[in-house]
Amino acid sequence: MASEQGDDAAELRRLVADLLVVRGSGHLSDGQRRYPRWELDNASLRRLLAQGVGGVILLGGSAAELRQRTRQLQAWSGQALLICADVEEGVGQRFEGASWLVPPLALARLHRADPAGAIALAERYGRCSGREARALGLNWVLGPVCDVNNNPANPVINVRAWGEDPATAGALAAAFSRGAQAEGVLCCAKHFPGHGDTATDSHLALPLLDHSRARLEAVELPPFREAIAAGVAAVMTAHLLLPALDAERPATLSAAVLTDLLRGDLGFDGLVVTDALVMEAIAARYGAGEAAVLALEAGADLVLMPADADAAIAAILAAVAEGRLSRERLETSRLRRRRALDLALTTGRAAAGAAGAGPAVGDDPAEPLGPLSNGPLAEDRQLALTLVERSLEHQGGRLESAPGISLIRVDNLLACPFLSHQAPALERPEAAGWRTCLIDGRGPSPWSGQPDAPLALERLGEGALLLQLFVRGNPFRGSAGGGGEPWPAVLHQLQALNRLAGLVVLGSPYLWEALRQELAAGVPAAWSPAQTPLAQAAALAALGLGDAPTGGGGFTD
Amino acid sequence: MASEQGDDAAELRRLVADLLVVRGSGHLSDGQRRYPRWELDNASLRRLLAQGVGGVILLGGSAAELRQRTRQLQAWSGQALLICADVEEGVGQRFEGASWLVPPLALARLHRADPAGAIALAERYGRCSGREARALGLNWVLGPVCDVNNNPANPVINVRAWGEDPATAGALAAAFSRGAQAEGVLCCAKHFPGHGDTATDSHLALPLLDHSRARLEAVELPPFREAIAAGVAAVMTAHLLLPALDAERPATLSAAVLTDLLRGDLGFDGLVVTDALVMEAIAARYGAGEAAVLALEAGADLVLMPADADAAIAAILAAVAEGRLSRERLETSRLRRRRALDLALTTGRAAAGAAGAGPAVGDDPAEPLGPLSNGPLAEDRQLALTLVERSLEHQGGRLESAPGISLIRVDNLLACPFLSHQAPALERPEAAGWRTCLIDGRGPSPWSGQPDAPLALERLGEGALLLQLFVRGNPFRGSAGGGGEPWPAVLHQLQALNRLAGLVVLGSPYLWEALRQELAAGVPAAWSPAQTPLAQAAALAALGLGDAPTGGGGFTD
Repeated sequence: MASEQGDDAAELRRLVADLLVVRGSGHLSDGQRRYPRWELDNASLRRLLAQGVGGVILLGGSAAELRQRTRQLQAWSGQALLICADVEEGVGQRFEGASWLVPPLALARLHRADPAGAIALAERYGRCSGREARALGLNWVLGPVCDVNNNPANPVINVRAWGEDPATAGALAAAFSRGAQAEGVLCCAKHFPGHGDTATDSHLALPLLDHSRARLEAVELPPFREAIAAGVAAVMTAHLLLPALDAERPATLSAAVLTDLLRGDLGFDGLVVTDALVMEAIAARYGAGEAAVLALEAGADLVLMPADADAAIAAILAAVAEGRLSRERLETSRLRRRRALDLALTTGRAAAGAAGAGPAVGDDPAEPLGPLSNGPLAEDRQLALTLVERSLEHQGGRLESAPGISLIRVDNLLACPFLSHQAPALERPEAAGWRTCLIDGRGPSPWSGQPDAPLALERLGEGALLLQLFVRGNPFRGSAGGGGEPWPAVLHQLQALNRLAGLVVLGSPYLWEALRQELAAGVPAAWSPAQTPLAQAAALAALGLGDAPTGGGGFTD
Repeated sequence: MASEQGDDAAELRRLVADLLVVRGSGHLSDGQRRYPRWELDNASLRRLLAQGVGGVILLGGSAAELRQRTRQLQAWSGQALLICADVEEGVGQRFEGASWLVPPLALARLHRADPAGAIALAERYGRCSGREARALGLNWVLGPVCDVNNNPANPVINVRAWGEDPATAGALAAAFSRGAQAEGVLCCAKHFPGHGDTATDSHLALPLLDHSRARLEAVELPPFREAIAAGVAAVMTAHLLLPALDAERPATLSAAVLTDLLRGDLGFDGLVVTDALVMEAIAARYGAGEAAVLALEAGADLVLMPADADAAIAAILAAVAEGRLSRERLETSRLRRRRALDLALTTGRAAAGAAGAGPAVGDDPAEPLGPLSNGPLAEDRQLALTLVERSLEHQGGRLESAPGISLIRVDNLLACPFLSHQAPALERPEAAGWRTCLIDGRGPSPWSGQPDAPLALERLGEGALLLQLFVRGNPFRGSAGGGGEPWPAVLHQLQALNRLAGLVVLGSPYLWEALRQELAAGVPAAWSPAQTPLAQAAALAALGLGDAPTGGGGFTD
């Protein structure tokens, strides 16, 4: 009897553990972790996986490391794991060596002129992401973002969205999901019920979305409905307060949102996963344990990144003992998890089989290391190039001024995966005689403090300036003086001095739109929604610095 | 008959190819190469290995990638390859995830006070390097540097040397070599006959060493003699002109140096390998093919990094056909290569066996990924810590001023493996309220142009300054105005304003010596010869910012 109770308690504990997704590093060794406060060390990971924790979210490391890492995690676990990553812009966005694609919002802009073409590209985008994820041992892609980015001041969604209107976002997100899931990975529509119209970053505080139910039906919900109709396997909740639905609890913890709206009205019977519970919007208001219990009570199946996995397990077990949560409720979630895993496995096998004589990832018998060991497949390299070419905008012809200063603006020079010493943004102007000046938020100030002449030019040197602005998010909308850096005023300053040689914007369409209005006629300028070396090469080629990139990744040669 | 001739030509071609060591990236895919102009792409590498090229030198990638890469290269080759890397300061200097140790010159300084202790540490340094190299598939460590760094202005040897006098350099270099080779890798004493007393970087031009033979015997040669006596498997040549030995040819191409001096007088019968033939000192004066022929004629066995491997093979074959090089000469070199490989293999097996019940690298049966997959062994982590602790110098106590600006000076923010966002140099002062200001050579200028007040403080902000100077090489010896950045004058400027909070020097002992003389009494200051996160943590702990690091790599937690 005691033993049966013991077995039962152990079984219940494994059931609970199964519903957790904990955070690890894609790097193999503890010393390589980039976020050691958030990423479990290997001893803890191994212990939790042995106790039955059912999922891991990974960040960091190269494709080669990730392939080893996922094998290692599976070996540490006694069951098939869910292994996921925030690879919204190609697997190469997070894991070097795989494909790094333009941000989704670039396709939304293509969709205006060529809807069918954009949808076809979004599906290829999903195919590429799914194929490479599976090849490296991920079985769950935490995309597509289904939020409608109708608020350009949104600091957290922005170019990650597939649209600025519901129809575009829905059509493209569904196409992405179809493509990726056909390759044998699960997708995840996020952040339910819609995080596009917020000006607050929920990593820092709890945003409020004060819209009526009718407005939600018109704008926020349609992309989720479309992704669900396309068979998306999972939905991730938003850390948002929506008083129209629940005056008290954020969506992640709200039965009105997860059970009544998502399960009921939208009829979704797949996996519901919380956004990371460590985020301040949740972690600061509820404890690690209580947040997990509330999420499950509200209708979530899986708990992502609890602030403390052991505390979450203990709190859920206590909630079952107290009758707050039923065991059946947890069994149902586990069943959904298994169904999703089975689907990924079956589809993945079919996709591998369907590749047939073609270049299935990892099927080179002469290649001992398997998939992606010499980078993306030719068709995926071609996709990356096509997306850059089709989303590039330029005007004003080629650079004509004598070489002066190539001013490169980034957020943080110590975290620029797109800007190595051989990046086109550095190499191409330097090869033509330009002198690089790198600006981020932590160097000596380049600003004079004068509104009409904000750049302190005497700190930068002589000659005309080629501006290369790597900006994502949107600190620049509106007037020049508003909050962020005064680039519109810089354009006026340089044009008045006849020292503006050219402008390249990499990232924000909103900054590009604001700045191109300020450009004098004939000033060479280009925008790419991407910041990758490929995008840099394409933008600079449009200005006459180097050749346009071609397929095959040859732009690094 | 024709067929026999064909077989013979093919056999000769393989013999020649065997003597080449070509450059590849430690990363797996072509797109990840950091130096695509120097690193062969995979198609070329695979072709050359299939043709019999016998060695590869690798740079870049993590330990996890390197382990896969070396397996891949061996699989592409039909024979046992020599796989080497410039891991002079621990394997982690080049491959993240392995041990990254203090520069050798740190031990030379310990050697003054405690010769036996320093020699024991140098041998452990070699053990650690050899064990980790072997675990990752390298069988040849391109160290120890046997150059005597008696010229502090030397831009290329400097802290890589094991001594500033011949006796210290010889004793420590020999100890390193003994330790590493006992673990089953080959070592390489370099750069023969001695590159310590030059002020020219041979990567850029051909340095001249205008010393008599007697002076060479007294200063340059003893460390090589000692390394040879200790059984070092290989010697690397220097791209140096030594008129006392050969008025015409640099050492790499000089029979007087390689055959008469090294083989004859020093009695070395191991492998002689050239330094990289692509270096400007050679490549600019001789062609890719002729340089290789001249090196073999002079007495080298292996040709490292020919500017064009195919041209080198063709030129060597032509030289054999013309009678400039005999086939027997090449056979002898191949025999030396095989003997060295056999030695590494035999010793490696013995070392693995001798580890017995102890923690042999990679012998954890529960670890599916093998060696180093959770970072260095505990004993190697302890060694890294001991070396940092024993080489740290500090004075003046703890920081007492209110937090102001933490000014971090590096060469190049885009190439700082020691400075991630979580590096102690950033995190520790920031946690105490300091504001980071990052300076490299390519941002807005922090300099005023005024000799007495060189820092343009209005560009940096308010408050006292904590200076953290990451400097290696030696641009600062002598007066403040001489050539490099005027840090001595900066100390005077800040001390006059009562704005110098503290000083940390990471790297150059010469800069540290120059600056500590300028410090007012009681100013907190510390120096570490290393620039690693561990060294940053130790130096800042000495100034009262955070705890001293402990074993187990816990300083990243």
